Amino acid sequence: MPRVRVILGSKSDLAACEPLKQVLEEFAVDYDFHVSSAHRKPENTARLAQNAEAEGVQLIIAAAGMAAHLPGVIASHTILPVIGIPLASGGLGGLDALLSIAQMPPGVPVASVAVGGAKNAALLAIQILALQDPQLRGKFRAYKQKLAES
Amino acid sequence: MPRVRVILGSKSDLAACEPLKQVLEEFAVDYDFHVSSAHRKPENTARLAQNAEAEGVQLIIAAAGMAAHLPGVIASHTILPVIGIPLASGGLGGLDALLSIAQMPPGVPVASVAVGGAKNAALLAIQILALQDPQLRGKFRAYKQKLAES
Amino acid sequence: MPRVRVILGSKSDLAACEPLKQVLEEFAVDYDFHVSSAHRKPENTARLAQNAEAEGVQLIIAAAGMAAHLPGVIASHTILPVIGIPLASGGLGGLDALLSIAQMPPGVPVASVAVGGAKNAALLAIQILALQDPQLRGKFRAYKQKLAES
Amino acid sequence: MPRVRVILGSKSDLAACEPLKQVLEEFAVDYDFHVSSAHRKPENTARLAQNAEAEGVQLIIAAAGMAAHLPGVIASHTILPVIGIPLASGGLGGLDALLSIAQMPPGVPVASVAVGGAKNAALLAIQILALQDPQLRGKFRAYKQKLAES
Amino acid sequence: MPRVRVILGSKSDLAACEPLKQVLEEFAVDYDFHVSSAHRKPENTARLAQNAEAEGVQLIIAAAGMAAHLPGVIASHTILPVIGIPLASGGLGGLDALLSIAQMPPGVPVASVAVGGAKNAALLAIQILALQDPQLRGKFRAYKQKLAES
Amino acid sequence: MPRVRVILGSKSDLAACEPLKQVLEEFAVDYDFHVSSAHRKPENTARLAQNAEAEGVQLIIAAAGMAAHLPGVIASHTILPVIGIPLASGGLGGLDALLSIAQMPPGVPVASVAVGGAKNAALLAIQILALQDPQLRGKFRAYKQKLAES
Amino acid sequence: MPRVRVILGSKSDLAACEPLKQVLEEFAVDYDFHVSSAHRKPENTARLAQNAEAEGVQLIIAAAGMAAHLPGVIASHTILPVIGIPLASGGLGGLDALLSIAQMPPGVPVASVAVGGAKNAALLAIQILALQDPQLRGKFRAYKQKLAES
Amino acid sequence: MPRVRVILGSKSDLAACEPLKQVLEEFAVDYDFHVSSAHRKPENTARLAQNAEAEGVQLIIAAAGMAAHLPGVIASHTILPVIGIPLASGGLGGLDALLSIAQMPPGVPVASVAVGGAKNAALLAIQILALQDPQLRGKFRAYKQKLAES
Repeated sequence: MPRVRVILGSKSDLAACEPLKQVLEEFAVDYDFHVSSAHRKPENTARLAQNAEAEGVQLIIAAAGMAAHLPGVIASHTILPVIGIPLASGGLGGLDALLSIAQMPPGVPVASVAVGGAKNAALLAIQILALQDPQLRGKFRAYKQKLAES
Repeated sequence: MPRVRVILGSKSDLAACEPLKQVLEEFAVDYDFHVSSAHRKPENTARLAQNAEAEGVQLIIAAAGMAAHLPGVIASHTILPVIGIPLASGGLGGLDALLSIAQMPPGVPVASVAVGGAKNAALLAIQILALQDPQLRGKFRAYKQKLAES
Repeated sequence: MPRVRVILGSKSDLAACEPLKQVLEEFAVDYDFHVSSAHRKPENTARLAQNAEAEGVQLIIAAAGMAAHLPGVIASHTILPVIGIPLASGGLGGLDALLSIAQMPPGVPVASVAVGGAKNAALLAIQILALQDPQLRGKFRAYKQKLAES
Repeated sequence: MPRVRVILGSKSDLAACEPLKQVLEEFAVDYDFHVSSAHRKPENTARLAQNAEAEGVQLIIAAAGMAAHLPGVIASHTILPVIGIPLASGGLGGLDALLSIAQMPPGVPVASVAVGGAKNAALLAIQILALQDPQLRGKFRAYKQKLAES
Repeated sequence: MPRVRVILGSKSDLAACEPLKQVLEEFAVDYDFHVSSAHRKPENTARLAQNAEAEGVQLIIAAAGMAAHLPGVIASHTILPVIGIPLASGGLGGLDALLSIAQMPPGVPVASVAVGGAKNAALLAIQILALQDPQLRGKFRAYKQKLAES
Repeated sequence: MPRVRVILGSKSDLAACEPLKQVLEEFAVDYDFHVSSAHRKPENTARLAQNAEAEGVQLIIAAAGMAAHLPGVIASHTILPVIGIPLASGGLGGLDALLSIAQMPPGVPVASVAVGGAKNAALLAIQILALQDPQLRGKFRAYKQKLAES
Repeated sequence: MPRVRVILGSKSDLAACEPLKQVLEEFAVDYDFHVSSAHRKPENTARLAQNAEAEGVQLIIAAAGMAAHLPGVIASHTILPVIGIPLASGGLGGLDALLSIAQMPPGVPVASVAVGGAKNAALLAIQILALQDPQLRGKFRAYKQKLAES
Repeated sequence: MPRVRVILGSKSDLAACEPLKQVLEEFAVDYDFHVSSAHRKPENTARLAQNAEAEGVQLIIAAAGMAAHLPGVIASHTILPVIGIPLASGGLGGLDALLSIAQMPPGVPVASVAVGGAKNAALLAIQILALQDPQLRGKFRAYKQKLAES
């Protein structure tokens, strides 16, 4: 049963999100993976968000570029925490996506990581899941120690 | 029967959208008016967009600040043209709202006007409706002439 | 008889506007096509705008980079709706063009799409024309459905 | 025993973080509260982060303006999830704080909310804690429903 | 006979341009003064530019805010040098106007001064006129010396 | 005798200023050409500015990147009009250079052209010189006409 | 004999630099104080920089707004370290001054502090002077400790 | 005994900091060199800062990209002057790093150089060390003269 649901706004975002998969797999965190645009497939996207809780998902990570509404739209349809990854595309270097994700209005939070921050999105998910999973917490502690010693 | 549907993301946007109402009324264009956040009331917002066409609405104007997803979310749920008004709030001067509205990904357009451009949103709506309404076209032509002579 | 007039500010914008042509042709919307700088050919540009209505054109799409005055200049010479496409060129990534197009002053609207948003400009034009063309509306509805299912 | 630790970079940030306290209290989430600058009190700040886990804290919320290092510095000293609130101060409108918080390098994530997003930081904390607290989850679900109906 | 033509995009720009008048009067440079929006009064604006040379005007100063097309539009209709003054209005602090004025495409230059730089626009005009007017050159030299001694 | 003095801040700016030379030569405007950094060679740079008037120079064009002080520093040492060309270098795309050139304080104007606007700097110089040179004015009028017809 | 020379670009910057004086006086560091614009008084400014070393000054602090060339111009005329304080003025919030001060080209460094960072400029000066003044070092150590304990 | 301590946030910053080493070696200034991330190795980084003074280091240069906390974190742990080098990485061109370094809050200064300004960081260090080292001062004076004559 997936604990994390990953949703990309477009197939063209796959490469930028490779590190996300690597980290989740390295930590043996089950996830499922979807490409579903907030704008082109609004109903599918809403369903992925609405059903997540009942399907045992504990948090959702969403990545998108430009006017990156995906994480906010997902957050509007679930009570699970949502992590947003702004992706750079075009000439604005991801500033558009960062503002579209971080500047959520009061009431519906999204946790934004850096532009292109797929790896940190996965690590943040693990930190959150580790709050109730001592084994995962142990793994993350080890990861952090290895970072400090590398 | 309203030809234009106006949707604001928040009651706090009412003052900034006053010029919108004034222009629509000056041109005697019927509209209905809603406050419905994309994030706090996603289903209500989706319904307002999905039902618009059947209710005879011809275009939708949506105004929002910060991560202004409202116009894009509405556009995802209708085939009607959607005009977005980015509103300034907080320290970023509306740049966040402008990018969140203008930078829509391919497939789902939104017509962005200026930050705080409520008046122009109404005029753009009138230009569009005038394409099939000779009387409205006449009024707009007169308006434009008056502008040039004022 | 063309229903859409497309005007580029420079020949160097042709590649960026290829998707615009593709979409209009896919939807079988007649258009004519011009390269006419707002600044280098002001009279020609004004004429293209002024004559559009009489020539049966229903809306104008204009694309330009840098201080992208073209859509605004065209809007000043017509009562038809004008869609502007900001193009990226040089180091500012199109922010200059976006602000030059979106930030139109009250009285003369331009509908801005995203930086490089040629495809969406065409789709927005189709949404507008579809308001009075049931067949086009049907095609757009099918397009939107295909997007959602792809 | 506090489940959330709130740390502000400066006493002058108190007003901007009032909504944070209100939400945590409304949801009856225990928290402790500190003012401890990352730069002026680095050891105290490190200790607050390092001791949090052993003291039963489950997540840390940190708010700061300008070069807002506080959330990142805290994240470097704990395996708990850290939520950062960028605060606007001076002429840059909070863009400096947003980039200093959101743009964390790979390995040490911070969950950024909007500039001035104290309320959403608290709600995000509640969403995270609710993953392991059915009662809190129920409260948040009710809150979200109330939002949608208001 | 006016040597300088001053054109503002809007009556609301009058206060910001007061220093311009003061400097021109202090240096006894004849000017005429117009309010004529590039977008609302395109033909009037074009005429002001086209007729300037024949009326003995030697250079044109144009001030505008937001998508400040006025100086560029004027430059497209005259061979006289055009000085543009970007004005701040709304939340973007004049960045929109600065980019709309400074980022002119190759072939049609505009000389941009600072946001709100009405005084410098007048001084630049005087420096240019002084090239062929020894008395004005003397006055400007004295002005510059007084600056250095003040 | 050179009528225009061109000064670059660095040899690495030569390629970006090639169009400047081409235009001046096409219009047969005599110029001299210097590489002299405002910061690395302040005395040489000051002398180039201070001596320009006595040497018959009528205006100075200066190009620089990053904190592009060169045009402003030159303007501080001469009563001749100074045209500044901001050059893009590094990741900020020339925004640093544009602001460093355009945002001159009251009293000492610089005429800024676009980022990378070497060609327009030359054309602006010609427009200014043409005020007192009927032959050059004729050439510029022809150039403008050719632009409009091309 | 002053060890620090403070130079402001304009009298209007006095209030923003009050904290600078307070800190220098609190630490009993002798300084002299000048208002001398880089652009309006270039020779006076150059002299203040050129003479500083011979007059026993050990470092120079310069504050300016807009296109803040003052610190860079001073740095071009001395081998002493120069600290620059960007000041906010107008709508760009000091971003113009920050880029004009921080983005100095290779060869002539300026040490930039924050927009409005007058206090830190004084503290940085003290840190530098303390390298050769054990008593000042002691005072700064005490100051830093007091910060940590406050 | 090293007089300068250089710390990079990441091995990937080595190339960008090559000019720093070259300058220090050219001026025969002893330095030691470390890669130690503020976030991944906070204790190691703190130790490098805390021990510097006792080890005879006189100033610290730190380089980092993105949310570049490294210079500020180091400054929080030492009374020595700290020079920060913002590095460009990703789409924001180094603006994130520049703001994270320059916008330090009152009490803990960092001396920021330009984005990618490794060479100037070294030269600034030399200017500071030269205050108490006549031989180094002589070398820097010669360097500056050579710059002016090159």
